[in-house]
Amino acid sequence: MFFLKKNDLFSTFDIVSHQNSKANWKDKLHEIIYEADTPAGKLFDVILLIAILASIILVMLESISSFDVKYHTFLDISEWVITILFSLEYIARIISVRKPLKYIFSFYGIIDFLSTIPKYISLFLAGTHALVALRALRLLRVFRILKLARYLGASNQLANAIKASRAKIAVFLFAVLIAAVIFGTIMYLVEGEENGFTNIPKSVYWCIVTLTTVGFGDIAPATPLGQFIATIIMILGYGIIAVPTGIVSAEYTKADSENKNKFTDEELEHQKNLQLNTQCCVNCLAEKHQDGAEFCHKCGCRLHHD
Amino acid sequence: MFFLKKNDLFSTFDIVSHQNSKANWKDKLHEIIYEADTPAGKLFDVILLIAILASIILVMLESISSFDVKYHTFLDISEWVITILFSLEYIARIISVRKPLKYIFSFYGIIDFLSTIPKYISLFLAGTHALVALRALRLLRVFRILKLARYLGASNQLANAIKASRAKIAVFLFAVLIAAVIFGTIMYLVEGEENGFTNIPKSVYWCIVTLTTVGFGDIAPATPLGQFIATIIMILGYGIIAVPTGIVSAEYTKADSENKNKFTDEELEHQKNLQLNTQCCVNCLAEKHQDGAEFCHKCGCRLHHD
Amino acid sequence: MFFLKKNDLFSTFDIVSHQNSKANWKDKLHEIIYEADTPAGKLFDVILLIAILASIILVMLESISSFDVKYHTFLDISEWVITILFSLEYIARIISVRKPLKYIFSFYGIIDFLSTIPKYISLFLAGTHALVALRALRLLRVFRILKLARYLGASNQLANAIKASRAKIAVFLFAVLIAAVIFGTIMYLVEGEENGFTNIPKSVYWCIVTLTTVGFGDIAPATPLGQFIATIIMILGYGIIAVPTGIVSAEYTKADSENKNKFTDEELEHQKNLQLNTQCCVNCLAEKHQDGAEFCHKCGCRLHHD
Amino acid sequence: MFFLKKNDLFSTFDIVSHQNSKANWKDKLHEIIYEADTPAGKLFDVILLIAILASIILVMLESISSFDVKYHTFLDISEWVITILFSLEYIARIISVRKPLKYIFSFYGIIDFLSTIPKYISLFLAGTHALVALRALRLLRVFRILKLARYLGASNQLANAIKASRAKIAVFLFAVLIAAVIFGTIMYLVEGEENGFTNIPKSVYWCIVTLTTVGFGDIAPATPLGQFIATIIMILGYGIIAVPTGIVSAEYTKADSENKNKFTDEELEHQKNLQLNTQCCVNCLAEKHQDGAEFCHKCGCRLHHD
Repeated sequence: MFFLKKNDLFSTFDIVSHQNSKANWKDKLHEIIYEADTPAGKLFDVILLIAILASIILVMLESISSFDVKYHTFLDISEWVITILFSLEYIARIISVRKPLKYIFSFYGIIDFLSTIPKYISLFLAGTHALVALRALRLLRVFRILKLARYLGASNQLANAIKASRAKIAVFLFAVLIAAVIFGTIMYLVEGEENGFTNIPKSVYWCIVTLTTVGFGDIAPATPLGQFIATIIMILGYGIIAVPTGIVSAEYTKADSENKNKFTDEELEHQKNLQLNTQCCVNCLAEKHQDGAEFCHKCGCRLHHD
Repeated sequence: MFFLKKNDLFSTFDIVSHQNSKANWKDKLHEIIYEADTPAGKLFDVILLIAILASIILVMLESISSFDVKYHTFLDISEWVITILFSLEYIARIISVRKPLKYIFSFYGIIDFLSTIPKYISLFLAGTHALVALRALRLLRVFRILKLARYLGASNQLANAIKASRAKIAVFLFAVLIAAVIFGTIMYLVEGEENGFTNIPKSVYWCIVTLTTVGFGDIAPATPLGQFIATIIMILGYGIIAVPTGIVSAEYTKADSENKNKFTDEELEHQKNLQLNTQCCVNCLAEKHQDGAEFCHKCGCRLHHD
Repeated sequence: MFFLKKNDLFSTFDIVSHQNSKANWKDKLHEIIYEADTPAGKLFDVILLIAILASIILVMLESISSFDVKYHTFLDISEWVITILFSLEYIARIISVRKPLKYIFSFYGIIDFLSTIPKYISLFLAGTHALVALRALRLLRVFRILKLARYLGASNQLANAIKASRAKIAVFLFAVLIAAVIFGTIMYLVEGEENGFTNIPKSVYWCIVTLTTVGFGDIAPATPLGQFIATIIMILGYGIIAVPTGIVSAEYTKADSENKNKFTDEELEHQKNLQLNTQCCVNCLAEKHQDGAEFCHKCGCRLHHD
Repeated sequence: MFFLKKNDLFSTFDIVSHQNSKANWKDKLHEIIYEADTPAGKLFDVILLIAILASIILVMLESISSFDVKYHTFLDISEWVITILFSLEYIARIISVRKPLKYIFSFYGIIDFLSTIPKYISLFLAGTHALVALRALRLLRVFRILKLARYLGASNQLANAIKASRAKIAVFLFAVLIAAVIFGTIMYLVEGEENGFTNIPKSVYWCIVTLTTVGFGDIAPATPLGQFIATIIMILGYGIIAVPTGIVSAEYTKADSENKNKFTDEELEHQKNLQLNTQCCVNCLAEKHQDGAEFCHKCGCRLHHD
């Protein structure tokens, strides 16, 4: 299609109409499946969303044994319906992209495959059916479909705040982990196997349970010295919970005020629009195209317009 | 009180003063029940507050079986006294409003009905008495009576901060929920039924208990791999608790400083007064009238003045 | 020390120096007990601090039955020594103040009395000895002795921040309480007595345990619906924990920046000194006198100087 | 490497180049072990890091009794290999420093000794082997090796924020501790031994578990009054968790903005470089030398350069 550009003097859109019907059909499919700007695309997204939620609920109901016994046939049929729908979607996604391998080995491609295949395998191999539960990972697609990011506010202060404080929080959590290993080892020496601290990994697990103020109580110190050290760990955990919170809120305030200085209101509005644009390149699946963009900003392939 | 205004030449509101004495009696009742500017209105609010608290305490005492056995007659009589008082209040509220249906189907109208009716039904049908406990919802009225909102500070920075960060926190909690479903499913596969993770919904419930750092301990991972994943979930929960806190405190600081720039001290004082005005339209129950307002800003109906 | 001032021509405070030696002895005692500017006063404070800590540790050791059985005589004698010391201190405090009743019925006066008397009563009445544990309240004096407030930073931003957000946090906690009553009642209806929710107060208690993310696990929902509602309560608790934190940190930042604008560095230094001044009026026990002040700012009585 | 400087006419440090080859060999060793600027130094650090992690994992595996029984010989041999490696490192560290005692009695020196010696002692004395677990403390060295501090951001706002709020948080935690003692004592009086509150220290331990929102549930109030007091403690803990968080985030914001005013971008860049410089004085082990520094800023001893 790029060759058509050669003859083009003024019009830049003639070429699209010269594409053969097969390519058009594929492009249309791409538009429906990967984008959400057309009514058909929106409808597809809504149906997909409902199908994903239905499949998750199905998996949940199946896991409740009393329910599974009662309605086994119904659940099995529904499961097959969903599986076939997802298989069709998976095939359609592969067909409509110019570089199918790029989709197949993308994050969502692998998830889509893993959430479809277990049902087929379960025909030959027993026990693998439980892997259907991996379908829960498809929930991540909800983020893309609902475009939840845009609710997080214009110009993504939150994302910036988290990005800016990511390294700090990582180091912080790493420090928490080291503290957990050290205190866990000490607790193992102090409490010993008879009080539930049967080995160091379990003791470290207990320590994290305590430091994060979760406190299951499945293991709890029984000796006075162990309880004393537990007290120190808890107060430590209570004191340091302030640090990541402090980091994020400070970075958030900063990102917010910096944003205000850097961008005019017009630019912020523009940024917001950028996020709402759902176009997706037919060739390389790149996103975040500008409104009115004619070509993909990544691979130079032409974008669709209605 | 309206008669004083009758002789006013420039007054254009003569009609109001021509209302018959019955309407006046109704208006007075409206003033007592719905407003708190007159001594009678204040007294009514205080009595209502005490009655609500007493009714809650009664329901609580009744639920303690050892107490119920001992003082059954006393509790039953008190319950009837409260129920009749609430019924009278309910009828008075209906009578004193011009558009009773508006009250009946309002939020508080439904709660008032639901907290009165179960006792009557319990005469004919056994077992419905437990619904009396729904009376706890009447506690929400305490907010209106005590006008707690005004303690939250002039110009409602807090409300603005929460409103501004509402969408963000909602998306955030939604993300937490999706993480809970995914991790819950993984934990179900890892731990299995023998360790208490009997089905996926229960596993998701456990995951939320852990992510929110509540940690009941009614279910706890027993396998090393399960404990390892639990560790990741806890540290994740510990790390992300910083995000909503950061959002709220940043928004709060922002709302605070924006407020300072937008409004002069006089305007803030005025806003505060607006919140303290307890007038409530006789016709449409609209609130937040300005001091000295003659007509309802919603339906144009005349407001009362002493 | 007052005699040095006698010859002062312009002094108008001659009367003070005419007090008899008994008053002077009392004043000295007052200075030692209530103030910390003289070496003797400091020594007294340090000894009192050690005595309080020792008495707390004694009470703790006594409560450990295995320890009490072994060292009963030693603990009993130590207990009597501490009690007699505290009694002497109590009497000395009464003697050295001009208005003893003011001390006796002050907060610390009542605590001092309650932490001394149980041991004497235990001679006549068995069982009252446990009240010795009330001595823990004397720990509050540690704050005054160590003057911990000054570590909280010049100009008391923290105190201001807490004071400014006190009403808001109170309303907030009140809202949490109402939510706990409503959700507690619902959980009682849903879970019922067979799952540990034996009555509404217990159900409300469970609800607060959950909302505050403490999560003991002594009571835990067992029905799917109950677990679903518990999930909502937990996510609610997780979301709203952000609010008081946001309030405090915003107020703290505000108090901090306002302070900077309001006061010069000199004034801040002065404020700090004010906090470190430990003088305490002989007559009315008022504190926070300025450096170099001659008279009490509350009752006009002369202050001591070395 | 020093020979390159020999011909320098203006150099006044000729003496250094006259050191005998033995000293040079020691200096080289010092550079490899204590610094990370040379390839050899980096390699040493990476190997040490792997060895420490391997030793921690070994200790953990050994503590799992089922694993220890199966692979006892393998674990024992690996343990000896690690111990001998650590011993060699310990000796090398002592040899390569000019003042060995300074290293031996430094924090890391003591940890290195304690993590090496237990294995040797276990040859003569049984039971001391468990102390090998103290090796977990060597994990602290990871901080130095990975130079994690630099991820915490240029100019150390976080460190400043924590330093600035350290005293406040300490006082705050002290207040929490006093509250725990007082409430713990009250709970001991209220609940008594029959409900798990067997003595005051245990009761105080429970109180800290509750105040910090950990909530193990190993001890839980059973009487209505005890549950009521527990409710107060929990709401208190929920309310005050806001304070340290507020302090840290306010201080962090402050440190951040002060930093911006105080330092130019160039200075911040310089500060960052300072932190990345890993040179370590051969004589006194001082660190944080400036880039291009010739002499130790602490003891004046010459620094190495490649």
